[in-house]
Amino acid sequence: MNPAALPNFDDIVAAARRLRGHAVLTPLLEADALNEAIGGRLLVKAEVLQRTGSFKFRGAYNRIAALNEAERKRGIVAFSSGNHAQGAAFAAKLLDVPAMIVMPRDAPTLKIDNTRGFGAEVVLYDRYTEDREKIGAELARKRGLILVPPFDDPYVIAGQGTIGLEIANQCAARGIAPDDLLTPCSGGGLMAGCAMALHRKLPQVKAYTAEPEHYDDMRRSLAAGTRQRNVDPPPSICDALLMPEPGALTFAINKPLLAGGYAVPESDVREAMRLAFRHLKLVVEPGGAVALAAVLSGRHRAKDRTVVVVASGGNVDPALFAEILSGT
Amino acid sequence: MNPAALPNFDDIVAAARRLRGHAVLTPLLEADALNEAIGGRLLVKAEVLQRTGSFKFRGAYNRIAALNEAERKRGIVAFSSGNHAQGAAFAAKLLDVPAMIVMPRDAPTLKIDNTRGFGAEVVLYDRYTEDREKIGAELARKRGLILVPPFDDPYVIAGQGTIGLEIANQCAARGIAPDDLLTPCSGGGLMAGCAMALHRKLPQVKAYTAEPEHYDDMRRSLAAGTRQRNVDPPPSICDALLMPEPGALTFAINKPLLAGGYAVPESDVREAMRLAFRHLKLVVEPGGAVALAAVLSGRHRAKDRTVVVVASGGNVDPALFAEILSGT
Repeated sequence: MNPAALPNFDDIVAAARRLRGHAVLTPLLEADALNEAIGGRLLVKAEVLQRTGSFKFRGAYNRIAALNEAERKRGIVAFSSGNHAQGAAFAAKLLDVPAMIVMPRDAPTLKIDNTRGFGAEVVLYDRYTEDREKIGAELARKRGLILVPPFDDPYVIAGQGTIGLEIANQCAARGIAPDDLLTPCSGGGLMAGCAMALHRKLPQVKAYTAEPEHYDDMRRSLAAGTRQRNVDPPPSICDALLMPEPGALTFAINKPLLAGGYAVPESDVREAMRLAFRHLKLVVEPGGAVALAAVLSGRHRAKDRTVVVVASGGNVDPALFAEILSGT
Repeated sequence: MNPAALPNFDDIVAAARRLRGHAVLTPLLEADALNEAIGGRLLVKAEVLQRTGSFKFRGAYNRIAALNEAERKRGIVAFSSGNHAQGAAFAAKLLDVPAMIVMPRDAPTLKIDNTRGFGAEVVLYDRYTEDREKIGAELARKRGLILVPPFDDPYVIAGQGTIGLEIANQCAARGIAPDDLLTPCSGGGLMAGCAMALHRKLPQVKAYTAEPEHYDDMRRSLAAGTRQRNVDPPPSICDALLMPEPGALTFAINKPLLAGGYAVPESDVREAMRLAFRHLKLVVEPGGAVALAAVLSGRHRAKDRTVVVVASGGNVDPALFAEILSGT
């Protein structure tokens, strides 16, 4: 595939074939207490149970598995706030490809440690003064590495789209007809892949992104019809969702397919993490819980509806999780 | 079935039929980091994802679903430290049967609140001075209620045995040949059901119970060949596993089928909960983590072996979980 081309549905099917036996077919979970609370049915696609603790493994594996022999020998470089870093590092390890990962110095310790644990070389940069895309591009050029982008790549988008395929298959197997899909959104790759898959398999489903308050570039871009940037947002606990604007490819896909987006305050994210702990028994990181939060806070009206949300990652430092559990 | 009769394999198959569409077919999960740490393969049957947050829903539902019309109208009574309480209360609610639950005053607040939340009438008693079996039996006699025992009942054992059936089916579907099975053990119903199912479906599997240190009555009973009691054990964080001796039925089943048992110190349980948080993204309560702890501590040698453990429950108060996460 041309790295600037939009993927299509067949690319998602091909990704599913590549990922078979390598990615976890994550369960679609629900909790009676949460269904009762929203007056509808909430199905949680538990990507926290994916290898490396987030959905990012899918796209990275699909990209790296498609490299030719010469490219595999040269190795890959990826830039990421943490989950794509771990996904790319571990996929590279499984496929025996050398990996260099560019990560922000203030990423959660757990994410940096895990990435190194997968055998990748980690290069740290300053999120506020340096440009990770430039650093990544320069490393790719200087060392002849293949860039594995976090979202704006047809293989990566197709890989994330396998989640949408699985949701469609799991719903069909259980006789469930979902009304809505909500996913967390940063660069937009997860939603782009899922929206493409559901557009084909379950065209009646309305798809909405969920972003942290002040980082709702996708929501505003969808409303404006052109890509919008976040301007000087305050710090956020949702470290996985801090991209300043939608990707070019992901926005081109999402724009015609999505019904809208939500901006979710941090207090709702914390409460969603506590509810996931209590009723779903899942560890969900802040960025992984925004779609859940959009529903559980009532922001997305779920009464009498069947809503699928993706809980996209669970890589949260224990100290922060303990602090959130202790809050109200 | 006669309540004093041993269940057989067909009773487990009948239970699986009764539970279909009502219990969650819980996933068999693994984490690359844990496999690497033990030098073998660790598969976790995630019963924390079961309805009400523990496996107990299965046995209780199977018992209550087998009641006749007249019995259903009279209602049920159950005594439990918490997970069987929630399982019985919720199963009763689903089947529209009134429920009265006898719980220790010092059970985790979360478990008491959830039980009440399912619409059951909760009667509290003192774990150290009162006899819950007497209280339950008296309520049953006075009010004509049907007793749903936590483990020593053929329907309850058969219900828990559906976990063993699912493990066998899930392993077969993925081409996995497990060597060992470890489950947490209190009264012994979970292991009795699982051991019966695996004895038929995967007879090569060696089965071991895991109990908290000082509460290893099943381990000592297996070694002695007759039922042994725990004598004046100190308090334990494993509130789900404090039964003083094995059940009569469960011991009769376990004695010929089991390879042995482990007594697990609390520090190993805490570490297993932290590892489940970090690598499995699961919330596991102390009592639900003892089998995991027996493997991850190296007490059960897993090198080059494929070991299935049941993570049997995830109903832990947030304050205790936060404290354990903050420990080392």
